[in-house]
Amino acid sequence: MTTQASSTAIDAEAAGTVPRLSLNRWTFRTTPVQEFLEATTSRGIEAVGLWRQDVEEVGLDALRRRVDDAGLRVSSLCRGGFLTASAEADRAAALDDNRRAIDETAALGAPTLVMVVGGVDRADKDIVGARARVTEAITELAPYAEQRGVSLSLEPMHPMFAADRAVLSTIDQALDIAEASGSSAVGVVVDTYHVWWDPSLERAVQRAAASDRLLAYQVCDWNLPLAAEPLHSRGYMGDGFIDFPAITRMIAATGFTGDIEVEIFNENVWATPAEESARIIAERYQELVLPYA
Amino acid sequence: MTTQASSTAIDAEAAGTVPRLSLNRWTFRTTPVQEFLEATTSRGIEAVGLWRQDVEEVGLDALRRRVDDAGLRVSSLCRGGFLTASAEADRAAALDDNRRAIDETAALGAPTLVMVVGGVDRADKDIVGARARVTEAITELAPYAEQRGVSLSLEPMHPMFAADRAVLSTIDQALDIAEASGSSAVGVVVDTYHVWWDPSLERAVQRAAASDRLLAYQVCDWNLPLAAEPLHSRGYMGDGFIDFPAITRMIAATGFTGDIEVEIFNENVWATPAEESARIIAERYQELVLPYA
Repeated sequence: MTTQASSTAIDAEAAGTVPRLSLNRWTFRTTPVQEFLEATTSRGIEAVGLWRQDVEEVGLDALRRRVDDAGLRVSSLCRGGFLTASAEADRAAALDDNRRAIDETAALGAPTLVMVVGGVDRADKDIVGARARVTEAITELAPYAEQRGVSLSLEPMHPMFAADRAVLSTIDQALDIAEASGSSAVGVVVDTYHVWWDPSLERAVQRAAASDRLLAYQVCDWNLPLAAEPLHSRGYMGDGFIDFPAITRMIAATGFTGDIEVEIFNENVWATPAEESARIIAERYQELVLPYA
Repeated sequence: MTTQASSTAIDAEAAGTVPRLSLNRWTFRTTPVQEFLEATTSRGIEAVGLWRQDVEEVGLDALRRRVDDAGLRVSSLCRGGFLTASAEADRAAALDDNRRAIDETAALGAPTLVMVVGGVDRADKDIVGARARVTEAITELAPYAEQRGVSLSLEPMHPMFAADRAVLSTIDQALDIAEASGSSAVGVVVDTYHVWWDPSLERAVQRAAASDRLLAYQVCDWNLPLAAEPLHSRGYMGDGFIDFPAITRMIAATGFTGDIEVEIFNENVWATPAEESARIIAERYQELVLPYA
């Protein structure tokens, strides 16, 4: 596959950097923040995706300072969302929390906040109603995000999470919500684990790009058998069933030039020393993703 | 919810029958065939969905005789499919096996063969190619099914099975394949477990009916947490997250009047005596499905 390696990739190898690769913090959740940042820079990786848990643990200003000191870009902050509760008090609390998440995104200099919209309310089992509440809440939050200069990346999650995490399952559905919001600050994050199966994938990616709503690209593989916690079945690229060259070509064809985040939730990866995980990720990225990006 | 119970449901209760309910054999896989048939009829249930494993175990003629003696309809036979192999010998063997499955469907007097199309070939990880092979194979099998007087019910499976069981994930995708086959004998089975999350569900059901391709309706719930084998997370209606009244109304609005199969793969259900499972299923069906059907 490396016969198609781009000149960008070759230049980067010579320079000892790994262009456009971003390590998502949760891939290294068992590693202290400072060690994670050092594993990133020592591998020639120039960006990270952060989580709100880091903000809580380290403090917003201190986290920003550490990232700046390391010379890293922040590609995204995870995560806002959980907007499907039907009770008014829950809804108001969720909106407040999302405004704080937007503030944090801006303060960290990240371009976008990743949004996991929330699951079905067990009380009514009304997935259609839950989706309508998501659209309303995103429409309400979008102007606030615009004012802070950040975008909201709606994350379509794999349909196996529709009940408990995200009633948003496809890129098309995310784009419908984004368009309904009337805001150019709302778009979609394409995460291979969640959307690789979608028969409309290529067309949906094109649609996202055509409306300037393709905001982020995250990669990891679909491993089988599923882990006991299905969220943790994410694997190193190449370990599972996903055709990374094909999907990355779809993304590249739209002109997307953003960072590419590697986000892996996996017990085995979490048990691996950070330096070693970072090495494997950089290798797989340079073999299966970057040449097609 | 029973305030909306139809007069059909009330008549049936009086008569001691459970109209349109079909028990899928695999819901009772741990029960011997004869005992399964008796649990069905003793509960006033008039139809069963059978599996090819029963044909193999009992013999085709003997199985047909037992079903006839019990006075039962056979609503479907499970299952054909597994058509995604790229090697020519594997492809030919799969087509042969599917022709036998079509013969068995006809011999049992079942109207339709349920097709689980197969997963991604790990050798190439090419989901797009796998889908193209499914369309080719279905197009080749359709005339044979027509000659035998049976239909092929393509089963969109939940996207969590896209890698290993079915690259066919949505009703729309099934209808695209059915239309490409050029045959009126190809259609779709709507199984709540597999499609309940689909944001296009209502429109897709209408599309299926509009082209006379809505061939079968199967129900069971989406239970969480997922079982270690995710296929076995199917639950009794009412135990999980699915809105059966809403989905059943979508089906009924198209004029669908066929049997409604309850197909539950679940270790706890398999450990329950058949009589008891049949009782629970009939009750849940009469509360959550039949009034809306």
